[in-house]
Amino acid sequence: MEDHVYRIIEISGSSQTSIEDAIQSAVSRAGRTLRNLRWFEVLQTRGHLEDGKVQHYQVVLKIGFTIDDTNIGV
Amino acid sequence: MEDHVYRIIEISGSSQTSIEDAIQSAVSRAGRTLRNLRWFEVLQTRGHLEDGKVQHYQVVLKIGFTIDDTNIGV
Amino acid sequence: MEDHVYRIIEISGSSQTSIEDAIQSAVSRAGRTLRNLRWFEVLQTRGHLEDGKVQHYQVVLKIGFTIDDTNIGV
Amino acid sequence: MEDHVYRIIEISGSSQTSIEDAIQSAVSRAGRTLRNLRWFEVLQTRGHLEDGKVQHYQVVLKIGFTIDDTNIGV
Amino acid sequence: MEDHVYRIIEISGSSQTSIEDAIQSAVSRAGRTLRNLRWFEVLQTRGHLEDGKVQHYQVVLKIGFTIDDTNIGV
Amino acid sequence: MEDHVYRIIEISGSSQTSIEDAIQSAVSRAGRTLRNLRWFEVLQTRGHLEDGKVQHYQVVLKIGFTIDDTNIGV
Amino acid sequence: MEDHVYRIIEISGSSQTSIEDAIQSAVSRAGRTLRNLRWFEVLQTRGHLEDGKVQHYQVVLKIGFTIDDTNIGV
Amino acid sequence: MEDHVYRIIEISGSSQTSIEDAIQSAVSRAGRTLRNLRWFEVLQTRGHLEDGKVQHYQVVLKIGFTIDDTNIGV
Amino acid sequence: MEDHVYRIIEISGSSQTSIEDAIQSAVSRAGRTLRNLRWFEVLQTRGHLEDGKVQHYQVVLKIGFTIDDTNIGV
Amino acid sequence: MEDHVYRIIEISGSSQTSIEDAIQSAVSRAGRTLRNLRWFEVLQTRGHLEDGKVQHYQVVLKIGFTIDDTNIGV
Amino acid sequence: MEDHVYRIIEISGSSQTSIEDAIQSAVSRAGRTLRNLRWFEVLQTRGHLEDGKVQHYQVVLKIGFTIDDTNIGV
Amino acid sequence: MEDHVYRIIEISGSSQTSIEDAIQSAVSRAGRTLRNLRWFEVLQTRGHLEDGKVQHYQVVLKIGFTIDDTNIGV
Repeated sequence: MEDHVYRIIEISGSSQTSIEDAIQSAVSRAGRTLRNLRWFEVLQTRGHLEDGKVQHYQVVLKIGFTIDDTNIGV
Repeated sequence: MEDHVYRIIEISGSSQTSIEDAIQSAVSRAGRTLRNLRWFEVLQTRGHLEDGKVQHYQVVLKIGFTIDDTNIGV
Repeated sequence: MEDHVYRIIEISGSSQTSIEDAIQSAVSRAGRTLRNLRWFEVLQTRGHLEDGKVQHYQVVLKIGFTIDDTNIGV
Repeated sequence: MEDHVYRIIEISGSSQTSIEDAIQSAVSRAGRTLRNLRWFEVLQTRGHLEDGKVQHYQVVLKIGFTIDDTNIGV
Repeated sequence: MEDHVYRIIEISGSSQTSIEDAIQSAVSRAGRTLRNLRWFEVLQTRGHLEDGKVQHYQVVLKIGFTIDDTNIGV
Repeated sequence: MEDHVYRIIEISGSSQTSIEDAIQSAVSRAGRTLRNLRWFEVLQTRGHLEDGKVQHYQVVLKIGFTIDDTNIGV
Repeated sequence: MEDHVYRIIEISGSSQTSIEDAIQSAVSRAGRTLRNLRWFEVLQTRGHLEDGKVQHYQVVLKIGFTIDDTNIGV
Repeated sequence: MEDHVYRIIEISGSSQTSIEDAIQSAVSRAGRTLRNLRWFEVLQTRGHLEDGKVQHYQVVLKIGFTIDDTNIGV
Repeated sequence: MEDHVYRIIEISGSSQTSIEDAIQSAVSRAGRTLRNLRWFEVLQTRGHLEDGKVQHYQVVLKIGFTIDDTNIGV
Repeated sequence: MEDHVYRIIEISGSSQTSIEDAIQSAVSRAGRTLRNLRWFEVLQTRGHLEDGKVQHYQVVLKIGFTIDDTNIGV
Repeated sequence: MEDHVYRIIEISGSSQTSIEDAIQSAVSRAGRTLRNLRWFEVLQTRGHLEDGKVQHYQVVLKIGFTIDDTNIGV
Repeated sequence: MEDHVYRIIEISGSSQTSIEDAIQSAVSRAGRTLRNLRWFEVLQTRGHLEDGKVQHYQVVLKIGFTIDDTNIGV
């Protein structure tokens, strides 16, 4: 049942290209220091505007990862 | 006024490609057994992660469809 | 600190192509009559269906813009 | 305790006359194919406008009904 | 400024006729023991069904009233 | 697709008679200066009390209208 | 990816014993007519009182199940 | 229709044993001074921790009771 | 464990000076008739305007207090 | 009843000093172009940080104002 | 006042037995690497189903703990 | 675009003086171990009462900070 113990963190990411790319940028950043990322949920989709155009998309995610003693992530 | 009577169901879909594709996969699945699908609303955008990458996007939708006696869908 | 005074409006946009394109369509429309658009937030992602396919995506946005006396936008 | 097992569906109805009438129109539609409707809850009250007047009211309801094996309604 | 100190209670009322009548029934009941009722807000609109018809409407209200030492209402 | 670009405003209305009449009063007021009102959604139903009776009903609405360059309404 | 297409329904269950037992009663009822139930989420925990004691617990659940053509469950 | 007029109060209860027991403790306390308790709804489930263990569970409930002139409970 | 049984009421207060002062005004009013007030939570921060200035701040609070048989506060 | 017809807009303000001052800054800005401001409600309290200190507070407000034909504010 | 500075994390736990046991499993896991856990709040109660039965309960908790310089937990 | 990648944590702070001071106390505590704090958002404003007076204010904040490899803060 160990698989069902998640630690859940909140992180944002951004991209000039697409919402999907902003999601991946947040996931990649989290993955640099955390192992065993399992799922994400989008909490907010926002963005910045310049000269009447979307300059970049920004997403706020919850990311769940399973924890072991070398990866507490807390 | 008959057009304004909707039955509303909740369904999820997923895609390895994009959020739009995950939406279409849920709509297509609902369309196999229901007629007269009219609109959708995204309730949740989530996804699964593997090796620090988005493995697939998953959306939960409300879908509204108009009903007639051979298509009650309840 | 003047930069931190925003007026916030609600506007929707749509696109047959993608959610990002629907966002840009709402932003472009607002930009025809308002200056200094700064950020947006997606409140709702919806869409219309026809023949079991997504006919168009529709987003409802909050858009924040900074105001000056010739651009009150209220 | 059997009475306390409900299936809950979501349905909308509309009326040119009143909110109460829109509620009854949704209930009547559900009752054509489902037995044992017990309660409703109004989730949303909306409507369409034409020429600056309310053309019709539209309500979205949750409706609960008790189920037996010939009336699963799922 | 005394006018701006409210005590707020929650009460439900019902009517076979209309939502407005259900509101008034809750207000009347509260008024039997409390003075100085000032405002209400509808939290929920529900109802019971019988034989595919609305049997009665039920509303849950917040009611605000100003308080004095003989009318604490707490 | 032009039809799907809405500007959405928030306005309240009131009536001594009914909730429906309060909705119409808000819609009528908006219609004095804005064209192409298309839909409304009730955000809140409230009211004022006097002598233990409902003195008037008050609704807060979102109203959506389509915009053109002479009717930006922002 | 087929596993990630869920249909989601809402159902309530009750028990005189415990919240867990009320959950199982709702799940069992759904399982009489639907296959491939996968997960549940508790939306509400309520109950009825008699003589100052809990007479039974009642839960409202969302239940997700995977669908195939003989099990559309819509 | 008298049965459908409820006064609704908010009360918390706690227990070292279980969530069900915490619910019953809140109900028992309310029942010492109020008659005709009819239903409860769990608003929050919380608890205190000590030495890495749950010391007690705490629930916040809404409790509905029918009122008569000797039991206004307001 | 007696300490963990709270009755929770809703009350508003106002002040021309500050939000903190509006909180204290609501607490003071509740304290005139209730003992053992323990905590508050701000539900809403509002206010009235006159001549383009804040005339007073108004807060709506939940207040929790422990109860004994002479202080039921219901 | 004219008093009960409000237009409601959303605006933010900021201050280096206090939350109350941030509220007043938003109100003052709205008052430069709109008459008859009547009430506000705080939707969000945020702020920016620099060197581990609050650099300024930022509030997002709803502001309600009564409208006449020369002050539609839409 | 030091006691009132909490860091709040989000963690899930699961159990085949009961909701209370799932809560304790999340708390125990957090306690392996964090000291001074003080309270929890249940955000979500979910679970997995197999063969029409609850296979395990899963809860998502917020856990608050007091922090000192060797236990920042961030 | 690096600036737009935030890690977001939840922390509470308290003060006997004011809400602003409680915010600063939470920010200061976070700043002892984390760099590059950028913004906060108030999630909850609460407080403890003693002898009918506010003993201290307590706020729960989300704090966003930018991350680099020596400041992951997860």
